[in-house]
Amino acid sequence: MAYSQQTAPFDYVIFGGTGDLTMRKLLPALYNQLRIGHVPEDARIIGTARSELSCDEYRERAREALEHFLPPAHKDAALIERFLKKVHYITLDGTKSDHNWDDLHALLEQSPADRIRVFYFSTAPQLFEAISENLHRFNFITPQSRVVLEKPIGTDSASARAINEGVSRFFKEEQIFRIDHYLGKETVQDIIALRFANPVFNAVWSAEHIQSIQITAAETVGVEGRAAYYDTSGALRDMIQNHLLQVLSLCAMEAPADLGADSVRDAKVKVLKALRPIPADKVAQETLRAQYVAGEMAGSKVPGYLEELGTESATETYAVMRAYVDTPRWKDVPFYIRTAKRSHKKVSEVVVTFKKTASSLFGKDGEHNRLVIRLQPDEGFGLALNIKNPSAADFSLQHGAMDGRFAPADGSLIPDSYERLMLDAVRGYPALFIRRDEVEAAWAWVEPTLQTWAANKVPMTHYPAGSYGPEEARKFIASTGDAWHEDMGA
Amino acid sequence: MAYSQQTAPFDYVIFGGTGDLTMRKLLPALYNQLRIGHVPEDARIIGTARSELSCDEYRERAREALEHFLPPAHKDAALIERFLKKVHYITLDGTKSDHNWDDLHALLEQSPADRIRVFYFSTAPQLFEAISENLHRFNFITPQSRVVLEKPIGTDSASARAINEGVSRFFKEEQIFRIDHYLGKETVQDIIALRFANPVFNAVWSAEHIQSIQITAAETVGVEGRAAYYDTSGALRDMIQNHLLQVLSLCAMEAPADLGADSVRDAKVKVLKALRPIPADKVAQETLRAQYVAGEMAGSKVPGYLEELGTESATETYAVMRAYVDTPRWKDVPFYIRTAKRSHKKVSEVVVTFKKTASSLFGKDGEHNRLVIRLQPDEGFGLALNIKNPSAADFSLQHGAMDGRFAPADGSLIPDSYERLMLDAVRGYPALFIRRDEVEAAWAWVEPTLQTWAANKVPMTHYPAGSYGPEEARKFIASTGDAWHEDMGA
Repeated sequence: MAYSQQTAPFDYVIFGGTGDLTMRKLLPALYNQLRIGHVPEDARIIGTARSELSCDEYRERAREALEHFLPPAHKDAALIERFLKKVHYITLDGTKSDHNWDDLHALLEQSPADRIRVFYFSTAPQLFEAISENLHRFNFITPQSRVVLEKPIGTDSASARAINEGVSRFFKEEQIFRIDHYLGKETVQDIIALRFANPVFNAVWSAEHIQSIQITAAETVGVEGRAAYYDTSGALRDMIQNHLLQVLSLCAMEAPADLGADSVRDAKVKVLKALRPIPADKVAQETLRAQYVAGEMAGSKVPGYLEELGTESATETYAVMRAYVDTPRWKDVPFYIRTAKRSHKKVSEVVVTFKKTASSLFGKDGEHNRLVIRLQPDEGFGLALNIKNPSAADFSLQHGAMDGRFAPADGSLIPDSYERLMLDAVRGYPALFIRRDEVEAAWAWVEPTLQTWAANKVPMTHYPAGSYGPEEARKFIASTGDAWHEDMGA
Repeated sequence: MAYSQQTAPFDYVIFGGTGDLTMRKLLPALYNQLRIGHVPEDARIIGTARSELSCDEYRERAREALEHFLPPAHKDAALIERFLKKVHYITLDGTKSDHNWDDLHALLEQSPADRIRVFYFSTAPQLFEAISENLHRFNFITPQSRVVLEKPIGTDSASARAINEGVSRFFKEEQIFRIDHYLGKETVQDIIALRFANPVFNAVWSAEHIQSIQITAAETVGVEGRAAYYDTSGALRDMIQNHLLQVLSLCAMEAPADLGADSVRDAKVKVLKALRPIPADKVAQETLRAQYVAGEMAGSKVPGYLEELGTESATETYAVMRAYVDTPRWKDVPFYIRTAKRSHKKVSEVVVTFKKTASSLFGKDGEHNRLVIRLQPDEGFGLALNIKNPSAADFSLQHGAMDGRFAPADGSLIPDSYERLMLDAVRGYPALFIRRDEVEAAWAWVEPTLQTWAANKVPMTHYPAGSYGPEEARKFIASTGDAWHEDMGA
C-alpha cells in the first residue's frame, strides 16, 4: 500500500477553471500540497474555461483566491509566487470540437508524452461526455491520463447511468475518479481507523451493542444566491445520496480484506446493496422532508427558502431517512441520516448510541454510552459514559465524558479534503473515490423516496431558520426509540 | 440500596484520639460531612487517649488540625465552632480495665440507649482485643454499636486470624468494619461504575481483549520519621496485601448480583481465592523487591532507606508481584501489582492494556489500546487509541487519546475516602469495608512471598530515590511481554 508522499510530475487540467470551486478549493489545495512538499517542482496546473483571459490575468485571479481562502498560517509570499509560475490558462470551451484545443495541445506537448495528466471536470455533469469526447478526438487521453468527475453524478439512476456511460466511452473505469469530498476528509477516514485499529470499539461495533447510529450534516447557511440551482437538487440529492451514504458505508461495512481501493469499495458497495429498500408506500414512514421558513440566525432575521427562491417549490432543504442495513451485524439497528440547511449550528457528525447494559446494578440505569465522531468542525471524538456520582452517599451514576481530538499534535491544521483527493488522482490511487457501482447503488436506494416526494405523496414540513429542524423530526426518531443528539442532554 | 444522605444521630468514640490519623484524616472528614449536611446536629465525637488533656485542650488541638488539613475552600470559622462543640475528650487507656471508663460511661449515658455508637480503633492492632474486651466488660457494646478497625490487620495469616478472633469474641462480624481507605476512594469505586455501567468497557473486559493489567501505587515520600515502624512492615504488607489486592479484586471480579455489601464482597473474595498461588520456588520469578538508595527528588539530594533507618535491613520499599486470576475470564492475563516509596512521581492508577487487533489492515500495527484509570492524583480516565495520521499520504496510524475526569462538574473537590467510610460505619453500610474472609485470603496469597523474602532467598535490588524503580523491574515485566506505563511512550 505504500506510496510516496511526493507525486510524480503532472499536468493538472481543470475544466471550469474560473469557477468558484477552483478558486475556493482546488487551487488552495494544490498550493498547500506544494507547501508540504508533495507537489514536484515541474508540475503544472492548467485552468481552462470559456472566459477570454490571459495567463497573467488568470494568475492574478488565482493569487486573489489564495489570499482570500488560504489560512493565514499557510500564506507565504515567495511560495505563492513559486506556485503561480506553475499555473497556466487556456481559453477553451471543452464541449466544442472546433474550439481552442490547439493551444492546450501545444502546452501539454511541452511535457514528456508519458507524463501524468489529470483532467478535472469541475463543470455541470451534462458536459462530461462532450468534454471527454473532445479529449478523445484530439488524442489527449494517454495511458497516464485520468479524469476527476465532480458531483453531482446525475440526479437519479438513469441520469447517473447516462453520465457514467458517456465518460466510460472514452476513459476506462480505473481512469475515472468520481470525487466525494467527504471521503477526502481525514475525519471520515478516521471512521476506518477508529473501527478497525481499536479493539475497544471494534469489539462492540454491531447490533449486539449498538442501538442506533445517527449521521448528521447540518449547515447554518441557506441557499441564498444558489437558490435557482439548489431548487433543482434538494437536500437528499445534495447530501444524502452521496456524502452521507458514504459515511454510512464506512460505519457499517465489514472489515475489508485490505485497504486497497477495491477491497474498501467492495466492502462499501455491499452495504449500499444491503440497504433495506424503502418502497413508495413506506416513504412517508421512513423519511421526512422539510423546508426552512423565515427565522433567526445569530440574532439576525433571515428569510425562508421560498422567499429566497421567489417562487413556490417542493424542494426540501432538510431531509431525514431511516436506513436499515440488512446484514447480520446490523440486525434491526436504525441508521438515521439527516441533513439540513439553515440549521441551528454547523455540524457533521456520527453519533453511535450503545444499548444499555442488561444488568441493573445501579439504583437507576445510567445513560446510553455514546460515541460521537465529530467530522467537522471541532474535529474529534467524544465518548459519553457513566461514572459514579461522587456527591451522593449511595452508588448512583452520573454523566461522564471522555474527549479526544483528531487534529495533529503539532498544532498544524487538518488538511482540506481536496488536498488529499487531488493528489490521489495524480497518484492513481482510487480508494477515496466512488466506484461506478457505488454511485448507482446509492441512487437505486434513494430513488423511490425521490419519486414519492416529487409526486407530493409525503407532506412537506417546515422549520424556522436557525432551529434544529421540524418538530416532526422528534416524533420520527422517537418512533424507533431514539432521540436526536441535540435532545439527548449532556 | 437507598440510604439517606444524613445519618441518624451517633456518638463516635475514637481510640487513638490524639494520633496523627485522627488529626489529619478523621476529624477533617467528619467536619466535611457536617459541612455538606450528612452529620446530624446532635452527633458527638469523643476522642480518647492516654494523654491528660482537658476537653478544651483537645478541642484546641482539633481546631489546629482543621486549620492545617482542611482545604481552604472548606474552611468556615462559624462551622468550625459548631463542629468543635460536638467534640469531646476522655483521658483513657482502652487496654486497661482499671482506667477511666466511668467518664466515658457518663458521657455516653447522656444519649438515648439506642443511639448509634461507633468505636474507631486507630491504635496498634495488638490492642484491638484488649479494648474490645473492656468495652464488653463495661457494657458499652449495644446492639447499635459497631467497631471500625484500622489497618494493619496483622502482619501475616496467623496474626490476622488472631486479631479477627480477638475482636470477634465481643463484636459480631456485621458489627466489624475493617477499613481500607482505598475502597473509600471515589475513584476506586469508579472501577465498578466504569466496568459495569458502560457496555463499551464491559464488553471487552476479559482475556479475549485484555493483554494485561497493571496496578501501581507510588509515592514520592520516603519513610523519614516513620522508618522504625516501616521497617517492621515493608511495601508488600503496607500496600499490596490490602489496598492493591482490593483494587485488583474490583478490576477482576465477576458482576456481583447486586451492589449489596455481601454480593460485592462475595465477588471480591472469589477473586482473591482464585489467585494462582506463588509457591516459594516461584517467588524469585513472580515477584521483585527493592530498596531505595540515595538519589534526587525535585533537584534535592535525599538519603537512601538504610541511611534513614540507621541500620541494616532486609525490608523492601518497593515491591512488584505478578498475579494470575485463575478464572475463565482472566485466562493467562498477568496483573502486575506494584508499589514504591521515593518514586519519581506520586501516582495510583490502573492501566489496562488491550490486545492488538488480529487484523493488520494498516501499514504497521497501531499501539495497544490502553485504558488508564487515575485513582489519584489528577483523578480521571484516559484511553489511548489509534487514529489516522493526518499528515501522511498513505493510511498510517498515529497515537490518539481520549481523556475524562472523575471530578464533579461543579468544581467541588472529590471527597476524601475517610469521609465516606466513617459515615458508612454509622449507617451500618459495610460494602466498602473488608470482610474477614477477604483479609485472610489476601494474607494467604502473599504469605509464601513474605516468608521467602524474609528468608532472604530472593535478592534485594536497589533503585535511586527519585527513579521509577530498579532496572530489574523492566526485565521482570518484559518477561511476560509487557512494559511499565512510564516506558510505554505516548
